[in-house]
Amino acid sequence: MREVAIIGVGLMKWGELWKKSFRDIFVEASLNSIDDAGVDHIDSMYVGCMTGGLFVGQEHIGSIMADYLGQRHIPAARVESACASGGLAVKMAYLEVASGMSNIVLAGGVEKMTDVDGGGATAALATAADQDYEVYNGVTFPGLYAMIARAHMDKYKTKREHLADVAVKNHANGLNNPYAQFQMKITRDDVLNSVMVADPLRILDCSPITDGAAAMILCDLETAKKLTKKPLVQIIGVGHATDSIALHSRKDLTTLNSTVKAAQSAYKMADVKPADIDVAEVHDCFSIAEIVVSEDLGFFEKGEGGCAVSDGRTQIGGEIPINPSGGLKSKGHPVGATGVAQVIEIVKQLRGEADKRQVDKAKIGLTQNMGGSGGSSIIHILKGEL
Amino acid sequence: MREVAIIGVGLMKWGELWKKSFRDIFVEASLNSIDDAGVDHIDSMYVGCMTGGLFVGQEHIGSIMADYLGQRHIPAARVESACASGGLAVKMAYLEVASGMSNIVLAGGVEKMTDVDGGGATAALATAADQDYEVYNGVTFPGLYAMIARAHMDKYKTKREHLADVAVKNHANGLNNPYAQFQMKITRDDVLNSVMVADPLRILDCSPITDGAAAMILCDLETAKKLTKKPLVQIIGVGHATDSIALHSRKDLTTLNSTVKAAQSAYKMADVKPADIDVAEVHDCFSIAEIVVSEDLGFFEKGEGGCAVSDGRTQIGGEIPINPSGGLKSKGHPVGATGVAQVIEIVKQLRGEADKRQVDKAKIGLTQNMGGSGGSSIIHILKGEL
Repeated sequence: MREVAIIGVGLMKWGELWKKSFRDIFVEASLNSIDDAGVDHIDSMYVGCMTGGLFVGQEHIGSIMADYLGQRHIPAARVESACASGGLAVKMAYLEVASGMSNIVLAGGVEKMTDVDGGGATAALATAADQDYEVYNGVTFPGLYAMIARAHMDKYKTKREHLADVAVKNHANGLNNPYAQFQMKITRDDVLNSVMVADPLRILDCSPITDGAAAMILCDLETAKKLTKKPLVQIIGVGHATDSIALHSRKDLTTLNSTVKAAQSAYKMADVKPADIDVAEVHDCFSIAEIVVSEDLGFFEKGEGGCAVSDGRTQIGGEIPINPSGGLKSKGHPVGATGVAQVIEIVKQLRGEADKRQVDKAKIGLTQNMGGSGGSSIIHILKGEL
Repeated sequence: MREVAIIGVGLMKWGELWKKSFRDIFVEASLNSIDDAGVDHIDSMYVGCMTGGLFVGQEHIGSIMADYLGQRHIPAARVESACASGGLAVKMAYLEVASGMSNIVLAGGVEKMTDVDGGGATAALATAADQDYEVYNGVTFPGLYAMIARAHMDKYKTKREHLADVAVKNHANGLNNPYAQFQMKITRDDVLNSVMVADPLRILDCSPITDGAAAMILCDLETAKKLTKKPLVQIIGVGHATDSIALHSRKDLTTLNSTVKAAQSAYKMADVKPADIDVAEVHDCFSIAEIVVSEDLGFFEKGEGGCAVSDGRTQIGGEIPINPSGGLKSKGHPVGATGVAQVIEIVKQLRGEADKRQVDKAKIGLTQNMGGSGGSSIIHILKGEL
């Protein structure tokens, strides 16, 4: 398989975008990525989207986005793995370039979530859980992650304050991200006093409902060297694993096995170990998720993730900065776009383009994108040349 | 890229399967494909599904199906290109094996369409059209294909009887397909006197609403030679192209450009021409579609597709047998599964396992799977060793 580089990345301001359509936001991010790459065409594209059918009544998403991007007739595919759909789009584009089938491929993600009301959004997101056994009985995602939080607190003495500190750190980072939905500073007390959603998770433990898109251009390393004058960023590791999407089918709620297994594959392929990672973007859909994932990726011993956050070990300047972009918590979580935006943040970090969020001397970065309550995880490891 | 073979195929009886669930039918077809292949594991899988969200309230489809298939933890991805989602799953599995990333990959497709009422099914299917410009104004798929039919009748003098003869031929073929939803003989008069749906299309011009699944096992040619004692079937050509999903954005309604372009790619890759194809399965979602597609694939001159059907040139024993399986018309059209089932029929034909539907001396076969009103087309060319 060929070596693959990312030569262009594109975002747009995320939020409640009632004046822009589903196709508008995808095209905006995609044109930004094409502009950043400086390419005059793309050979093929992948679009990560969780549920265009339920959010905006639109499927056939690959074709419609290719057409509105001015790329009518190219092969275009929509891929879905719930909230890991964006990561899946990056993986598929990687595979297409690595295989030699295509040279220049766009990987994008999009979700327009605010065209339905809050109940509609919760119901649409619940399709990432087991409809017959979980959702039918009334549980939605805050409840599922609350169970994970309770189990982790019980087994490892993780404290309510640890959870709050994830949100405080990520909002502090997001303050410096102009694309973030919620650029605002919050305190531990703000989190602890915010509205209860599913005990112990409060509203400030939860990532928001967001309209947004993200896109990037991948190509083979040789073409990349000819096309770009920017610092080259390569994908050196890819990991993808699944798990039961129903929580009740797992032996241990405090470990996300899809993340553990995807990480093993990605580290092996990249020939690196957790200590080699300089910066990571992980799937903090709820504050507890970042803690569990930071352990399952091997950054900390099992049970130490909560203390690690509160001790500042995951902040910019700490031993392993996590979510310098602001994470899903501050940046927003348009579910199909999130996995692509995570990779974009790492590209910016490895290019030295992250401004006030820049992690010093970042050479190797990792992204972990997760579907549902861990029913799927997709991990990418990137290497810069700076 | 490596050469890729299909070593196992699995179907299950399609129809209104109210006693089986979405996951049940996928697992049934998949286990049949694994049994047929004789493999003891799969490395990865792809699931084609158009809109699990709207039909059964379930997304995260790759993960849930992998789990229920007893393959928890393997990489599993759901792919979507409307009614071409099944063909897309086959393409992605082909790519993963050809690239060398995996050796044994399952490509499946599934749709459970009858758990919603008729209006719900029509609305779900309409998400394959342009929601903002077509569907908003009230048009659904029978209306879109009726416009294509009227344009073709006007430009090429295609007759109402030609359309009817597509349905008559496909039902005659489907009579010999034990997996078909509607194993029944119909006459030209039956079609011409059936209920009007969208002038000139009547109910017997339309493929039905169906619950069903299909699956196959792909692997690299070297592994295939070790694993299977059945006649080897290779994928020698893959074509994939898109078009505007809205009909009003096209210059000519009588040609489906995504099919023309996908066919060019597939013929070039396979190094064959239309006359080399011994048997084809094409996307007869409506009778007119088979006529237009048979021209766009190069089997007949533009405008001759209607006469070709009525002259018997596309029946089993004719110069290019089309839809020996019974096509979408008789077999049923569970939209995510259709593209996989088309490839399965060609595998059976090339293995000499098609019983009373067998096309004599079939060595090279083609499948054409289409999304919406031609917003995407995915074509595979297969070669047998008999």
